[in-house]
This record gives sequence, structure tokens and C-alpha cells, in this order.
Amino acid sequence: GTHFNIAVIPGDGIGKEVIPEGLKVLQAAAGKHGISMEFTHFDWSCETYHSTGKMMPDDGLEQLSKFDAIFLGAVGFPGVPDHISLWGLLLPIRRAFNQYVNLRPVRLFEGLQSPLANKQPGDIDFYVVRENVEGEYSAIGGIQYEGTEDEVVSQQSIFTRKGTDRILKYAFELARSRDKKHLSSATKSNGLFHSMPYWDSRVAAMAKDYPDLKVDQFHIDIFTANLVRMPEFYDVIVGSNLFGDILSDLGPACTGTIAIAPSANINPEKTFPSMFEPVHGSAPDIAGQNIANPIGTIWAAAMMMQHLGSQAMHDTIMSAVEAAIRDRLSLTRDMGGTASTQELGQAVTDLI
Amino acid sequence: GTHFNIAVIPGDGIGKEVIPEGLKVLQAAAGKHGISMEFTHFDWSCETYHSTGKMMPDDGLEQLSKFDAIFLGAVGFPGVPDHISLWGLLLPIRRAFNQYVNLRPVRLFEGLQSPLANKQPGDIDFYVVRENVEGEYSAIGGIQYEGTEDEVVSQQSIFTRKGTDRILKYAFELARSRDKKHLSSATKSNGLFHSMPYWDSRVAAMAKDYPDLKVDQFHIDIFTANLVRMPEFYDVIVGSNLFGDILSDLGPACTGTIAIAPSANINPEKTFPSMFEPVHGSAPDIAGQNIANPIGTIWAAAMMMQHLGSQAMHDTIMSAVEAAIRDRLSLTRDMGGTASTQELGQAVTDLI
Ligand SMILES: CC(C)[C@H](C(=O)O)[C@@H](O)C(=O)O
Ligand SMILES: CC(C)[C@H](C(=O)O)[C@@H](O)C(=O)O
Repeated sequence: GTHFNIAVIPGDGIGKEVIPEGLKVLQAAAGKHGISMEFTHFDWSCETYHSTGKMMPDDGLEQLSKFDAIFLGAVGFPGVPDHISLWGLLLPIRRAFNQYVNLRPVRLFEGLQSPLANKQPGDIDFYVVRENVEGEYSAIGGIQYEGTEDEVVSQQSIFTRKGTDRILKYAFELARSRDKKHLSSATKSNGLFHSMPYWDSRVAAMAKDYPDLKVDQFHIDIFTANLVRMPEFYDVIVGSNLFGDILSDLGPACTGTIAIAPSANINPEKTFPSMFEPVHGSAPDIAGQNIANPIGTIWAAAMMMQHLGSQAMHDTIMSAVEAAIRDRLSLTRDMGGTASTQELGQAVTDLI
Repeated sequence: GTHFNIAVIPGDGIGKEVIPEGLKVLQAAAGKHGISMEFTHFDWSCETYHSTGKMMPDDGLEQLSKFDAIFLGAVGFPGVPDHISLWGLLLPIRRAFNQYVNLRPVRLFEGLQSPLANKQPGDIDFYVVRENVEGEYSAIGGIQYEGTEDEVVSQQSIFTRKGTDRILKYAFELARSRDKKHLSSATKSNGLFHSMPYWDSRVAAMAKDYPDLKVDQFHIDIFTANLVRMPEFYDVIVGSNLFGDILSDLGPACTGTIAIAPSANINPEKTFPSMFEPVHGSAPDIAGQNIANPIGTIWAAAMMMQHLGSQAMHDTIMSAVEAAIRDRLSLTRDMGGTASTQELGQAVTDLI
């Protein structure tokens, strides 16, 4: 039978609370489909940092490289500066394993209320395809005249032809596979003099190979405004690391709660393991209260199984998620319910 | 009596349609308050670029420096790449005249419908204080291996202590002057390794001098989500050039239409003229149809008079704007009406 080895990194904050629910659901679905799954836990986190000075061991990436996929909760906690924790754990994994696609579906589920007036399920149903390894997320730069009135900080963004074209290609292909055949690119070429005009030129070049698609672009400022005014306009969105990050938090917020949104960090060539996580972070403000919404993690688990080739497991999990939300079974507070993290995880598991 | 010399740059697209309405309103209010105003028109625009190869003459900035203020419509039109038009006209003015504060009020007016469910006037009422001359908007960078598969584009952001502290100072002072005494800083220090941790450190340093304020910070991704989920939480928002740009488009979108939003590019020391413009751009898609909403421009005119010291003219103009919207007199299409640009401009003028 099929067997998968999964590396599990609960990480920080509510990551530790939602991951067990994802695992419970995965186990139930695997059982149903006769798939065997082995989970290996890694306690890498800000706590590790406090005791060892590192977010993960020196051979951490090598350890992870042997797995079929990585299932991650969240990284970051007060006490460790965010740029230290993230550049010590989440971001190096995305980079070392060339997970250059960050795929984030955004969908308004039946049973949830959008904060936007008069939006129904079907009105919000798009993908954000985010570049995941270069762009604005860069450690290149530094500070001059440190500690004086004259301090100057420089921060570079790096865009390569290879890095830009491959994410665009993924997005164009995804748009082609959809009914609406509509791709929208996020830019800011009026303000960012070098990077975004370049991005736009690569979009224009690739659009020539996809005459069957409707391709447009919006500056990131008006893009965020449009998501609120007319989310139904969008089908597949492609953006740089930063712009994709922004649109894939704003989008889910328009579907009622960002806590249901999944994030698939994909290495499409499957040379390296891909990583699956919820979009929400470690949420220190609600950590330890057992009220975090596990749906983003469960949806991420479904995407993981799809990536590993088990569409059936994906569909089983997503049907259960849809049913739980539609029938408003054991929903957490952010969805207007009163259930705990575990109760909702159990409700989805029971539906499988 | 008081006399003001105003440089007027209608610019491109709907800029040419809304500026005359702003002038009409200014003239009416000036008459009422016994103030004399002289308007000098400059036709600098993408059309100028087509005929001269430049967005403005070589001595353009020198010409503008003699005025009390600059009243601008919009810059940018298809046919001239956005980075050429904007770096040829709008952005050099902001920089040459050290208009380092971009102040953008966001308010839900009585009479307008928010696209957010269940939001009333009063629920959305905040300021975006945007850094306006440095940060991510930079022409530093370039391309290596141009035209080959190996192309690498580098784009720098520059943050200085001076540039950061002065915009923070403005925002802290503004927050102190308000009832809620609440300042929210936009960051992304978990992804942008150098610039945003620096920004955060300057916020933390300055917060020590303002113990009477509630100061918090949000990564830009969750910040956009929060604006949609709980706009009433925010009072004064401070952000870098890019993050301020994004939040000041998204905010107004939540108030029903971005076309009512004004943008004051302020040189607080008054060493140089400040510039006032609507937030909306040139909107090529609706240009020439006489349907553009002039309210953003009219509100910008009111902010100009406030900056020039005539609070009375500001209040007269804003009372007329509020009344026109509340009574839904001659509203344009984006506000659910059927009136033309001119009809709405006339309605506001008549109320004065
Ligand atoms: C046109 C563009 C360069 C400009 C900006 O991003 O500053 C505009 O969006 C604005 O907000 O004033
Ligand atoms: C935690 C942070 C570095 C991360 C990102 O910005 O990539 C998160 O916001 C996400 O979207 O996965």
C-alpha cells in the first residue's frame, strides 16, 4: 500500500494547538483510504531558540530533506524578534527546498458570513499564487552609521528572470485550467522603479503565449481596494513574495476569518519536500486557550495529500470541512461559534 | 486681505476633469471668506511627455517653488510607462519640496454605504500618516545580465533615521491630539530583514516619549485583514511609503469609494510648497466621460486651505461636502448616483 513519511513541526503559539487536529483528521482520512502515514515530530520553535540559540539544529534542513512532505503549524513568539525566528526556521525551509510556489486558495464557504456586505458563497473563489523564495523577502542590506543620527538602512529586493518566469508560468497554467481563464498580476511599477517594471515586462512577455487567457494587472494599492469592492472579479492572482503575502491575508479576511486559509509551499518539480501550513501565524494573543480555529491547518493537510497524489484523501477531508462549516457544527469563536480547537477538529474527524 | 498663489497641475486622465471642480469650490469659498486666490495652470502631463520627451520642463521644480501650494489632479496614462510618468512628475515634487508627510484622512460619511457589512459613520474614522519621500519608493537598483536567461534585478529601499523619526514624530503628535490616543504602526519585520526591524525599533524608541498613547504594530498582511474586519479599531496609522500607500487605498475603499479620499503631501516646516491631490489616479478607464467623482479633489482643496492657515475655508468646504453626500445631492455613479462630475462640483459650490 501507499506510505508517506511526514515531518511535523508544530512550532509556536497556536501552531501547537492546531497541528494535533490536522493529524487527527489526516489519520482518519488515511484509514478510510488504506493509506499508511508516519509522522515524525520536531519541536523546533522559539522555545528551542531560548535554550539553544537556534531555531533548528545545524543539520535541520538535512533531516527534513528525507521526508515526503513537511506539515508546519506556525513560527514566531514574543521574546524572539520576528526576523530572527522566521529567518531561522520558516523562510530557510522555503528556500532550501526550492518551494518557489506558495499556493493559497481563497473561498467563501457556505455557512460563513463575509464581512463584506451581500457576498454569497461563489462570489469569493480565487487563488493567490505567490512567489515564495526571492523578491522583497531578502536578507541583503544593512545599516550604515549605526547608532547615530545619520543611520541609513538599505534593504534590497532581488528578482531574477528564472524566479519570476517560473512563478508566472505556474500561475498562467493554473488560470488556463480554470473556467474563467483570468489572471491578475499585482504590481507597483509606478513607485518601485526597477523591480516592478521588470515584473510587468515578464508578465507581458508570457501573456503572448497564453492568448486564451484574460490577463490584467493592478497596482497593489488599488488591488487591495478591489478585493473589498469586487472580489468576484478575481480568479487567479499572481504576486511577488510581499504582494502575494498581503493579498492572501486580505482575501481570507473577506471570507469571514483568516484562520481557515491554507498555504501550500510547493516545489513543483518534487526534487525536495513541499511544506503545508495554515496562513495564520502563531497568534500569541490567543495561544494556550484552546480556541484557535484548526480549519486552516486541516485544509493545508488536504492540500498536502493532493500534492502527494492522493486526490481522494484531499476530497474526503474537504467534504468533511465543508459539511462542518455548512452545518455549523462545533465552530470556533472566530466563526461565530463557541467550540474549542479540539471539538472542531473532532467534528471534522467524525464526519470522515 | 489674504492672498494665495496656487500652482495647478491637472495632469492626466480624470485629473483634468476633477481639478476644475476643485477650483470652482475654492473660488466660492474664497469669495465667502474674503480671501483672494490666484491660480496658475501648468499643463504638465503624459501629453507633454509625448511632445517634449519630458513630463515637466527642466526648470519645472523651480517654477513651482514660488507658489504657496500645489494643487494636482493625477499623473499617468497608457502610452507612457508608469515609472516614467510618475518619476518624471509626481514623485520629484514630493521629494524636491521635502513633502515627507503624506496625510490621508479616511472617514465613512453619512449618506454613503460601506462595502463592509454593518458599518456606520463613526465606525470608520482614522488617519493614515504615510512616509512620502524615501523607503520602498527608490530608483536605486538596476539589472544585471540584461536580456538573458540570467537577468537579476535589484531594487533597494532606503530608510534613514532622520526620515523615519520625523514621520513617526508627526504621527505620534497627531495621535496625541486625538481622543483615542491610539497609534498603529504597519510593519513586516518578519519578512523584510533590515528595513522593517529598523522601523520597529524607531517606533519603540519614540513610544517611550509618549507614555500617554496606546501604541501597537501589525504586519502589513494582517493589517489589511484587520482594516476589513475591524476598521473601528484604528485611529492613527503610520506606515512607510509603500505600506502607507496600500492602507490609504484600502481604507477609503471601505468607506464606499476611493474617489472621495484626499492626499496632502506636506512639508511641515513650510520651507517649500506642499501639494494637495486626490488619492485616486488618472483612471484611464473612465477618463473623458465626465463621470469622475470630484470629492477627493474638493476634500484635498479643503486640506490645502487648512495647511495655508484658513481653517474657516476648510470648514466651509467640508460642511458643503458633508451636506451634499448626506442629502445625496447630485452624486456620481461610484456613490450610487447618476450625476456628472460637473453637476456634483456645482452642487457643492451651490451649498457654499
Ligand atoms: C501614482 C503613484 C506613484 C502614487 C503613489 O503610490 O504614491 C499614488 O498611488 C498615490 O498613492 O499617491
Ligand atoms: C511569518 C511570515 C514570515 C510569513 C510570510 O510573510 O511569508 C507569513 O505571513 C505567511 O504568509 O506565511
